[in-house]
Amino acid sequence: MAIAQLTADERAAAMEALPHWSVSREGLAIERKFEFGDFVEAFGFMTRTAILAEKADHHPEWFNVYNKVEITLTTHDAGGLSKRDVALAKQIDELV
Amino acid sequence: MAIAQLTADERAAAMEALPHWSVSREGLAIERKFEFGDFVEAFGFMTRTAILAEKADHHPEWFNVYNKVEITLTTHDAGGLSKRDVALAKQIDELV
Repeated sequence: MAIAQLTADERAAAMEALPHWSVSREGLAIERKFEFGDFVEAFGFMTRTAILAEKADHHPEWFNVYNKVEITLTTHDAGGLSKRDVALAKQIDELV
Repeated sequence: MAIAQLTADERAAAMEALPHWSVSREGLAIERKFEFGDFVEAFGFMTRTAILAEKADHHPEWFNVYNKVEITLTTHDAGGLSKRDVALAKQIDELV
């Protein structure tokens, strides 16, 4: 079953609950940048995130260099932002 | 001690030994794209690469989405490509 894209109101409400995330790709995605003490800390965070993502069957687009991690969340099945992105973002926030 | 950038001849010789990699950033980096069966396979590969990178104290710039991984190697201390990139690329190649 396809998952619905958030409405503008739903997106606004979601973003209030995710103050560390910003809307990107003209409203179709959200992103957050993280900085850690070193590569081991950054990759440790990525590993924990990877397990959450696999459990949720919802995977990030992400970039890492040394201690920096940039995560973008979007729902390809919805053609934009869905409640799955919001749920995963909240789980990721709880890791840091 | 700063590490030396490869000369053009050294770079050409290195690339012959790394047929799956291509030169990027006007000769200052090399990159390779990988595709796996699913996210768990892709992240498993990333985990093995992360351990190699940390052991070598030389870290990739990399991007992942689901089953795809894109790795760029460059040596910031050398301002471009060095033998460290070549050595790590060879180790990564041995993983797949």
